[in-house]
Amino acid sequence: MQRVTMGHGAGGEMMQELISKHIAPLLPRFPTEVSLDSFDDSAVCDDVVFTTDGHTVKPLFFPGGDIGRLSVCGTVNDIAVMGGRPMALSSAVILEEGLELEVLERVMRSAGEASREAGVPIVTGDTKVMESGKIERMVMVTSAIGKRSPYMDGNLQTAKQSRKVDSRWLTDDNLREGDVVIASGTMGDHGVALLSFREGYGFESHISSDCAPLNHMIEEALQVGGVVSMKDCTRGGMANAINEWSSKSRVGIELEEASIPVHEAVRNACEMLGLDPLSIGNEGKVIIAVVPEQAEAVLRVLRSHKYGKDAAIVGKAVTSTKHVVMRTEVGGRRILEPPVGDPVPRIC
Amino acid sequence: MQRVTMGHGAGGEMMQELISKHIAPLLPRFPTEVSLDSFDDSAVCDDVVFTTDGHTVKPLFFPGGDIGRLSVCGTVNDIAVMGGRPMALSSAVILEEGLELEVLERVMRSAGEASREAGVPIVTGDTKVMESGKIERMVMVTSAIGKRSPYMDGNLQTAKQSRKVDSRWLTDDNLREGDVVIASGTMGDHGVALLSFREGYGFESHISSDCAPLNHMIEEALQVGGVVSMKDCTRGGMANAINEWSSKSRVGIELEEASIPVHEAVRNACEMLGLDPLSIGNEGKVIIAVVPEQAEAVLRVLRSHKYGKDAAIVGKAVTSTKHVVMRTEVGGRRILEPPVGDPVPRIC
Repeated sequence: MQRVTMGHGAGGEMMQELISKHIAPLLPRFPTEVSLDSFDDSAVCDDVVFTTDGHTVKPLFFPGGDIGRLSVCGTVNDIAVMGGRPMALSSAVILEEGLELEVLERVMRSAGEASREAGVPIVTGDTKVMESGKIERMVMVTSAIGKRSPYMDGNLQTAKQSRKVDSRWLTDDNLREGDVVIASGTMGDHGVALLSFREGYGFESHISSDCAPLNHMIEEALQVGGVVSMKDCTRGGMANAINEWSSKSRVGIELEEASIPVHEAVRNACEMLGLDPLSIGNEGKVIIAVVPEQAEAVLRVLRSHKYGKDAAIVGKAVTSTKHVVMRTEVGGRRILEPPVGDPVPRIC
Repeated sequence: MQRVTMGHGAGGEMMQELISKHIAPLLPRFPTEVSLDSFDDSAVCDDVVFTTDGHTVKPLFFPGGDIGRLSVCGTVNDIAVMGGRPMALSSAVILEEGLELEVLERVMRSAGEASREAGVPIVTGDTKVMESGKIERMVMVTSAIGKRSPYMDGNLQTAKQSRKVDSRWLTDDNLREGDVVIASGTMGDHGVALLSFREGYGFESHISSDCAPLNHMIEEALQVGGVVSMKDCTRGGMANAINEWSSKSRVGIELEEASIPVHEAVRNACEMLGLDPLSIGNEGKVIIAVVPEQAEAVLRVLRSHKYGKDAAIVGKAVTSTKHVVMRTEVGGRRILEPPVGDPVPRIC
């Protein structure tokens, strides 16, 4: 009998397979602008952007954040990367009987602060309690709704000066040859901070989670214009996100390893632990595909923002390959595969 | 140190207190048409109705339903009772490592069938896995979005022929003296079916959960017109729902005990177990407040529907008291209090 494994929740190929074989085929299909089948960060129904995220992060509080901030930021970012302007959040908490109310309050206060920073209210919620021992402390599930950003029309108009753009949204299938790939900052911080804090490796004194609401920064980029796609580099990291682009847009992507921002401490930790920082989940980083004419202007705006100061151009879409190809610092080339499972469980 | 107890998740006064003291005050306020503070079944933002529900029901499969059908129906109903037409659902599942994939598939197939029956697609989702022993089998959190039902304008127009109506939605504060209260069917089935099945009392051979999507029936009632408020009688049962009406609308409500539909088997089970069927959660029953001129017509339409065949007029809003007063079958009067906790945990 087949059973659920930790890898099924890891955001990599195993999860894709779980959803596409064991979940999606059992659900009825209705016509929707951006549906479940597209595996985008959010769905779009009748011009409302809609997304949901369960959070089982362990521990609840970690360097740079906690489950409350994480939940709000992750869900706000999923709406924003579609070209949506988040309007409202819901929060469903599942609590373990016996959890200190003080812990719940600390989490909700932090969720509230992130909600204020993002400018997105939590308007509805639900509370359930399971018996002691039946759930580990607390789980938080946030959903969000958004409308199309008022900057999307102008943004796509600018992109169209360079080439045809089909979608009204920043979907994963929007990349074309020549599009420039920007990373909004250092990769791997969140997952490595969590892992190190949990295991007591000691790196955590130098590495914090990057957990942040990116909606304001993203709208500034849309105001510049020429952005055709955007992805949140959460579970499975940048390696997973960029491979989704490649397979859904049917283009190859060439990356320059030396140009991908990675914190020194994260790089060292990953080397010691045998991990690839590009397969590690982030909670405040996106990759952005921009038509070539606009890449420098978008980069400039990102860098002027506190959550994008380390942004860099890291590669471009090509047709010479179907894969994601990494040009290494020593001049070699290797294929960057999507992670199968996840080296670091329960980071979000 | 204060700690979370099972009663905090029970939908009664303890949960209200948890939310109003330990959650809501920590969240920033933004102007919203129907907000968190109103404790309605759903929120409304910019004419989008939005709701979320966590489901921790135990066991996952029970007479008359399972966690998949329950999740879809509960969330669809929360949108419908606001006067919304549900557009789309999200589904976030948190799975225990080692759960049989067959169980997940059975749940998703059932969710899919309920989604098809309701005519509301599941458009987005999330999957997380927790280690074996860290969560009991699976938890499912569904959220939904909806637009205002196209029948709401006509419905409220009809109500206005009788009296002034302030809200554009079927909010809990809409009742006025004279409004007639209709129960859409028998009360207590879901909770008693769950309890009996779990504990092996044997009543379950006669009692099934009433778990059903009520959105189509509710729209038929709105087409008749004159409906001013509606509530889902889930956790805390009809006793909780009706007391919310009374306190938020600042009216008393007089109920005729003899007229409230309760299955014989449920009544017997409750008598043996010392429970009040009106405090037991339902998953396919609503109470509806209608202006008096329209009550019979709405009742007729409900009764013509398979999910409303036992519908009955059970009481009316009054100003002679501030409470919910039950006129008993033997001619006495007693106050029907909202339940404090819940006699039956984890029924949804």
